[in-house]
Amino acid sequence: MDKTALFNLSYGLYIIGAKDGARDVGCVVNTVTQATSSPVTLTVCINKDNHTNACIKETKEFSVSILSEETKKTTIGIFGFSSSRDRDKFADVSSGHTLAGMPYVSEGVTSYLQCKVIEFIDDFTHTIFIAEVVEAENLSEEPPMTYAYYHRELKGKTPPKASSYVTE
Amino acid sequence: MDKTALFNLSYGLYIIGAKDGARDVGCVVNTVTQATSSPVTLTVCINKDNHTNACIKETKEFSVSILSEETKKTTIGIFGFSSSRDRDKFADVSSGHTLAGMPYVSEGVTSYLQCKVIEFIDDFTHTIFIAEVVEAENLSEEPPMTYAYYHRELKGKTPPKASSYVTE
Repeated sequence: MDKTALFNLSYGLYIIGAKDGARDVGCVVNTVTQATSSPVTLTVCINKDNHTNACIKETKEFSVSILSEETKKTTIGIFGFSSSRDRDKFADVSSGHTLAGMPYVSEGVTSYLQCKVIEFIDDFTHTIFIAEVVEAENLSEEPPMTYAYYHRELKGKTPPKASSYVTE
Repeated sequence: MDKTALFNLSYGLYIIGAKDGARDVGCVVNTVTQATSSPVTLTVCINKDNHTNACIKETKEFSVSILSEETKKTTIGIFGFSSSRDRDKFADVSSGHTLAGMPYVSEGVTSYLQCKVIEFIDDFTHTIFIAEVVEAENLSEEPPMTYAYYHRELKGKTPPKASSYVTE
């Protein structure tokens, strides 16, 4: 089996925002996929070791910030390569809150979504959340950042906890 | 809620192959997402009205052909805008079969995957399949076709049964 075939799957790049009590928490994923259009639902896959995962299971609420090509690499570094257990990831970025109170990143993003969890399913190392999109707003007309752009232009890395991590 | 925000989610384009008894069947989706890396699992979301959906529930097996930018628009037309109930969609394209016997498209694709269903979940109009990837091969070095490329370069349409269909 040639696992490099999996590199040809295409994705965007997103920051998931959630609440740990009063604290804003979040992480980077590439796994947001619209599942249905009426009602609008999506799936997102998050590593069970991520603090954000446990927080979403608790509140059943999360936001999605859709990253644009203008996202700073440092923002992806903060949200993708450190833990919300150890730091306030939203302290160093411009951000806002959805009507449901979930934090989203407001610079270097095209849009944000507010999502309410319908169900979640166990899948080995990860949890697949199915959620209804209840709020959606555009913040810029910057082109969305694809996962391919992140690797090619920003020379970005994939952390071992990511869905798409492949040992070669 | 501004549903156009959902247009900023990024995807690839794929043909799902399956078996209806001895017949090769299939359809186009944009919803393939790697979920875990060890074991390698993915999710794919398919409309319940698609004949391919019922066939996968029966056999628990399907293939994924990862479309490249060289895919003919007529191929997407055949697999995306007609039903396997009415025609042999594989009759007019070069194709092969995985070790498990599932049909895949072999021209205008970067790679194919063979997947074994672990579980499937109901999500309104669609079914979310969680499957283990058991076979993966590259067939070309052509760039993967993104959903954005399909819309921008091929002026492609989204059928109403698609996960990402949005009425404006």
